[in-house]
Amino acid sequence: MPTAVVLLSGGLDSYTAAAVARRDGFDVCALSFRYGQRHRQEIAAAARVARAVGAARHLVLDLDLTAIGGSSLTSSDMAIPKDRNVDATDVPSTYVPARNTIFLSVALGWAEVLRASDIFIGVNALDYSGYPDCRPEFIHAFEQLARVATRAGIEGRALTVHTPLMTLTKADIIRLGLELGLDYGLTLSCYDPAPDGTPCGHCDSCQLRIAGFAAAGVPDPALPTAPR
Amino acid sequence: MPTAVVLLSGGLDSYTAAAVARRDGFDVCALSFRYGQRHRQEIAAAARVARAVGAARHLVLDLDLTAIGGSSLTSSDMAIPKDRNVDATDVPSTYVPARNTIFLSVALGWAEVLRASDIFIGVNALDYSGYPDCRPEFIHAFEQLARVATRAGIEGRALTVHTPLMTLTKADIIRLGLELGLDYGLTLSCYDPAPDGTPCGHCDSCQLRIAGFAAAGVPDPALPTAPR
Repeated sequence: MPTAVVLLSGGLDSYTAAAVARRDGFDVCALSFRYGQRHRQEIAAAARVARAVGAARHLVLDLDLTAIGGSSLTSSDMAIPKDRNVDATDVPSTYVPARNTIFLSVALGWAEVLRASDIFIGVNALDYSGYPDCRPEFIHAFEQLARVATRAGIEGRALTVHTPLMTLTKADIIRLGLELGLDYGLTLSCYDPAPDGTPCGHCDSCQLRIAGFAAAGVPDPALPTAPR
Repeated sequence: MPTAVVLLSGGLDSYTAAAVARRDGFDVCALSFRYGQRHRQEIAAAARVARAVGAARHLVLDLDLTAIGGSSLTSSDMAIPKDRNVDATDVPSTYVPARNTIFLSVALGWAEVLRASDIFIGVNALDYSGYPDCRPEFIHAFEQLARVATRAGIEGRALTVHTPLMTLTKADIIRLGLELGLDYGLTLSCYDPAPDGTPCGHCDSCQLRIAGFAAAGVPDPALPTAPR
């Protein structure tokens, strides 16, 4: 089976993307980052999800992006926006400068070492927060970069960055995951959970998730009040 | 003065690139990585060089690329090649998969936070080891990626990646640096120095440096046997 590097955050999108990689016949090498995000419970969620999808490996790397700052997700002196209009076109403060570029770059390096030509990332440009590095044009530009950036690239082994969720609504993503038998109770989407991992219910990520489960017509198994 | 992020390794190329940035009127924010390289003395060299060029800031980030492996520069079980033909066209084992992509990605994120539109990197495609991520086509592809990867990019603030050494010979780089008053005795180029920092004299990087100083007709002040 070919190997794919899968970026795994512990949220429902990347879990679903990893499951699609497995469905499509890839051995999954999962990659997560402790980058200074407030919600460090997401690394525990990523580990649960990696096990659930049967990842061959799960690598967790430390890269302290708080040293760079510029995001409410990595700076304790900026508040996570709550009850924001998630359809607004501005880029919110939870945007982490160049985060997906950095994560994909490390995935590119690992893929080269593994002799893998495939990376999966759960980005979505429909029910999302307007982050520039979640859009198809970004992914396409990264693939072009990969052609000239690595030994594999100059030897003609092109890299494919798979984005199976790019054009799905959040409800579609949830339906797809449920068809694949996923347990979304393992995941954590909230940007600002309580110390026990309870989601805040008001950040962008919670809002998108709540609306997605509502539109899919199923309860969210990660919510303590939902029936399981 | 505009700000530029300058990737700084502690070697003579990035020192020269940083000095060019200063000459060209930029405030320098220097960025180095503890990425698991064997020659950790290079971080000490980077700190010396950052001071010497009057960097406004010097950020040293940890990112453990030994977890990914695939390079003799980060894997203690692979030997650093010695007395290699540096004009050979193959990519040697000292190539670190996607290293410059990763470093430039972090520089891109920091530049966005600093509202800087300029990055300097001391890559050179003439007297070099054939690394794919040192070539003009790689730099150009990265600039294209930056246009769609960040908030700054989509707001129309294009990023320029300056490569002032790209088409210079090593001797030309050394002559340029000496004109700018640089003290190359501060730098460390060797991939495999002794614990006291003495260069091995036989790795690619030493060979290129030795040949460069010879062609420039000046002694290397970093060599203990050279007159100072």
